[in-house]
Amino acid sequence: MDQQMHMPDGQSRETGQKTRITVLGATGSIGLSVADIIERNPDQFDVVALVANQNADVLADLAVRLRADCAVLADDGNLPDLKARLSGQPVDVAAGSSAVLEAVDRDTDIVVGAIVGAAGLVPTLAAVKPGRRIALANKECLVCAGDLFMAAIRDQGAELLPVDSEHNAIFQVFETNQADQVEKVILTASGGPFRELPLEQMATVTPAQALKHPNWDMGARISIDSATLMNKGFEVIEAFHLFPVRRDQLDVLVHPQSAVHGLVQYKDGSLLAQLGHPDMRTPIAHCLSYPKRMPVPVERLDLAALGTLTFATPDTQRFPAFKLAMQALETGGGAPAVLNAADEVAVAAFLEGRIGYPGIPDVIGAVLERFDRDGRLKGSMDIDGVLALDADARKFASDWISSR
Amino acid sequence: MDQQMHMPDGQSRETGQKTRITVLGATGSIGLSVADIIERNPDQFDVVALVANQNADVLADLAVRLRADCAVLADDGNLPDLKARLSGQPVDVAAGSSAVLEAVDRDTDIVVGAIVGAAGLVPTLAAVKPGRRIALANKECLVCAGDLFMAAIRDQGAELLPVDSEHNAIFQVFETNQADQVEKVILTASGGPFRELPLEQMATVTPAQALKHPNWDMGARISIDSATLMNKGFEVIEAFHLFPVRRDQLDVLVHPQSAVHGLVQYKDGSLLAQLGHPDMRTPIAHCLSYPKRMPVPVERLDLAALGTLTFATPDTQRFPAFKLAMQALETGGGAPAVLNAADEVAVAAFLEGRIGYPGIPDVIGAVLERFDRDGRLKGSMDIDGVLALDADARKFASDWISSR
Repeated sequence: MDQQMHMPDGQSRETGQKTRITVLGATGSIGLSVADIIERNPDQFDVVALVANQNADVLADLAVRLRADCAVLADDGNLPDLKARLSGQPVDVAAGSSAVLEAVDRDTDIVVGAIVGAAGLVPTLAAVKPGRRIALANKECLVCAGDLFMAAIRDQGAELLPVDSEHNAIFQVFETNQADQVEKVILTASGGPFRELPLEQMATVTPAQALKHPNWDMGARISIDSATLMNKGFEVIEAFHLFPVRRDQLDVLVHPQSAVHGLVQYKDGSLLAQLGHPDMRTPIAHCLSYPKRMPVPVERLDLAALGTLTFATPDTQRFPAFKLAMQALETGGGAPAVLNAADEVAVAAFLEGRIGYPGIPDVIGAVLERFDRDGRLKGSMDIDGVLALDADARKFASDWISSR
Repeated sequence: MDQQMHMPDGQSRETGQKTRITVLGATGSIGLSVADIIERNPDQFDVVALVANQNADVLADLAVRLRADCAVLADDGNLPDLKARLSGQPVDVAAGSSAVLEAVDRDTDIVVGAIVGAAGLVPTLAAVKPGRRIALANKECLVCAGDLFMAAIRDQGAELLPVDSEHNAIFQVFETNQADQVEKVILTASGGPFRELPLEQMATVTPAQALKHPNWDMGARISIDSATLMNKGFEVIEAFHLFPVRRDQLDVLVHPQSAVHGLVQYKDGSLLAQLGHPDMRTPIAHCLSYPKRMPVPVERLDLAALGTLTFATPDTQRFPAFKLAMQALETGGGAPAVLNAADEVAVAAFLEGRIGYPGIPDVIGAVLERFDRDGRLKGSMDIDGVLALDADARKFASDWISSR
């Protein structure tokens, strides 16, 4: 991994000094896991700011438990509620997008970027400042704005650590000073619930079936994205930005047990892997304490009890969405942003029963084709360009679905 | 891992400078793999000395191909032959045990300690000198003289790197500066050919059946030691000396596919592993180039092609020899040396048809019990003490077998 993955030597926190931390997306699944770690290690962290979208109840509760300096909602409609709940507490309270940016601006050491969706783009990018560590869980920063985001990390002299279990696994076994000896970076995929479904039955898959993820407890969109393997496609795109590798060095293995999270193949024949029980607190703790480790009370992976691990290459006939993602990575420019926007709209339409399961890649393919024909995938963009492309792709995807 | 595993900073070889290397056991299986790596990378290595037991033909051939400064046989009976074959070549030639020690004494950077058996003890220990790296493949140095050998490494400021595939795997994923965060060190074992044989049939196992190792192509004794799991017992004893862990942190998993060679479990729930196709050139290259890596033309491990990996806890009822090894580790002192000596004699007797397969642990158990009763397992020893204990244990084991 190149230098942005490493805390510059002079900036390591001294022993005994608390690490200041800001959490964007504090009330989501990742945010709550971060809170759990902070709460178990009160001597190690000082919470600077907690930012959430609209859940005043949970945010207020967290702010008190974690003794946060400030608590901010992106949606200002719930500000009165937040104020009422934190009345008399030593917590600064605010709401609205400029309040979010002010919170992000407060002096801190680590920013956890765990806002879900395109809403995370602007605040997470704003969080990239000199000497800071960004523990990144937001997918869109790298999928939709990877070039921009990585340039900001480099230009600001910030450090980027991946929270996502697959990328964090790879980061754990990627020898940063031996990047030229890396042959392959391999992400594992559970393969989702339809890994072995006869292909002719894929057309009749229902949302309820697709929402059943075998190993991880996840939100609706990511469950569907796991079933289609689109989620793995996004992760390959993220890995391309995170690690100093070529596109053709990135590989995916279907591994239904989700015990091995990621692997790095070296030119000496060594294949290093990180394994673990599926619990996000492990990669989060790794990001918060890196280059040290810290104890986390997660269940240990017991290989003897598990007994068997299996591996297979992904079948692109079964997973056409994954193929689209690989094409978008190849195209580069705006293609991954369009891919992501179209996928989000297509998945929502599937969940609402407006399109069938095979309709998901159909929508995405149609949107990518149209934007390519219109010459909108090429060239570099600023963040406003990315947001406009995202909005346009969503609109086109919705219209395309409605017109069927 | 503690500091002896790391090249002191000031002593890293400069770029472009060749690494001087001495190979003890040059004509054995490990020695030939070392030669293969050196021959493929002529710009990286200068061969100082090649030492073999008695194979003049192969030693002479290697000395020429690798442009060694000197070639030495331990057995001086073949010296005329070696001299004849190297006549006119710019290679110093010698034989005998003092010639071996003189060769070991020549200035060098890395000594590969790959002499098989107790014969490796004295020359390998003599090779431990300030600033040198010892790439250790000889089992007896750590099994029979672990305390002595590790003390020499520390006292001399030498560096010890494990060549054995399991220990090298663990070394690759053992974060030396996070040793306090290590929970467990796990060695894998193929489980040998009798992993699933009905227990009542173990009594009738023949040498031919026991010599069939499923994954590695090995010598006769180590094949039998793999079948009994004694070899894994020795490896656990070695791991205890190599890594800064307690006995109860060492664990073994039966893993018949031999794809995962070793694992380290951390307190954050991460389990790091090294995998690879079974080819000793990978761990050897790792030892020779560490902390860098170097390309090695070994077959790559293809997890999708392999398909399935399985893991199980070893069954001590099936593997009584393994249990004896764990007891010897617990006893410490001279117990592992007696264990090793008795095992070598017992395995030879089994191969000669003088005892049955279940007789192997019977012999070892009897020898350990007698030496314990005689108070010969306790206390520290110098190398002469270890050699005397080894000889006495062999004699007692032979006599015990003959007396049945």
